[in-house]
Amino acid sequence: MSKTGKVKKISEKTDYKCPYFKITKESFVLANGKNSDWYFLKRKDYVVTIVKDGYYTYMVELYRFSIKRKSLEFSAGMIEVGEKPINAVRRELEEETGIIAKKFTYLGWYYAYIGMSNEKAHVFLAEDIIFAKQKLEETESGMKVKKIKISDIGKLIKKEKIRAEHTINAYCFYLLKNQKS
Amino acid sequence: MSKTGKVKKISEKTDYKCPYFKITKESFVLANGKNSDWYFLKRKDYVVTIVKDGYYTYMVELYRFSIKRKSLEFSAGMIEVGEKPINAVRRELEEETGIIAKKFTYLGWYYAYIGMSNEKAHVFLAEDIIFAKQKLEETESGMKVKKIKISDIGKLIKKEKIRAEHTINAYCFYLLKNQKS
Repeated sequence: MSKTGKVKKISEKTDYKCPYFKITKESFVLANGKNSDWYFLKRKDYVVTIVKDGYYTYMVELYRFSIKRKSLEFSAGMIEVGEKPINAVRRELEEETGIIAKKFTYLGWYYAYIGMSNEKAHVFLAEDIIFAKQKLEETESGMKVKKIKISDIGKLIKKEKIRAEHTINAYCFYLLKNQKS
Repeated sequence: MSKTGKVKKISEKTDYKCPYFKITKESFVLANGKNSDWYFLKRKDYVVTIVKDGYYTYMVELYRFSIKRKSLEFSAGMIEVGEKPINAVRRELEEETGIIAKKFTYLGWYYAYIGMSNEKAHVFLAEDIIFAKQKLEETESGMKVKKIKISDIGKLIKKEKIRAEHTINAYCFYLLKNQKS
């Protein structure tokens, strides 16, 4: 048994690296004294933004290389090293949608992939908007901005038109914001 | 430009492997003709279960090695090769909570980590329950079952007591089930 009777990390090493993330292998002693190896994904935290313009929101439809098809999502993006979440939101929202918002409200955060990572996602509501110009990266080419009734989002999830975990999570935070107590 | 003017995959190789997942490196030709390399996580799909017993649910509190602390979550687990989601739900729910349910309702699915993976998560509602015995794996040692008022879940998310993406996503599906239209 580990001395404290609790889980204890005894080693960590980088097991894999690519330009966007790394995998660490970490060894633990469990409460029963046995060893257990874990493999974690280390990636930058990210932000998700729900735009609210009256009864409407603006989502993005983008090609997702992971699933080899298009996906309808709220604007989202990585937080760069040293960047504050609110600045990542401003930057990503303008790049992906061309939208500049005057008012941002923090809705909350969650662990993005808790089984394998301590990566966090921060959810913001953006209001009081004006339109500037999209500044897409090469891999975002073809990303389209879609005007959607906010009251239709639930229906779109039920109809499997929205499938991305961060978009559904962000929508849950949005629903809770408007829920009493 | 690629011949079709669309994104086209030109190669794939396994770049990393551990006992629980692998990383593939895939190369694409973008619509503008340039090459783009992507790194994907390949992992088993999983299930999440919301237990409903009158006004209450039963959640699990477990040590999460990824964040080095405890987390309050709905029961969840991997779908084994060849296993149907509904069977994974029955198995995981009984193992983790000791609960056997007579009634399961499928609430929907989502992509668990769309930026890097085509992994799916399936959400179920479990009702009409009886209690058997927990059958925890070694790494799940110390996992506790918590009886929680379903009407308190929103509050627990707002108060940062619930942080796991799959639990918040599953709760969103639960809210939508009860939403009209």
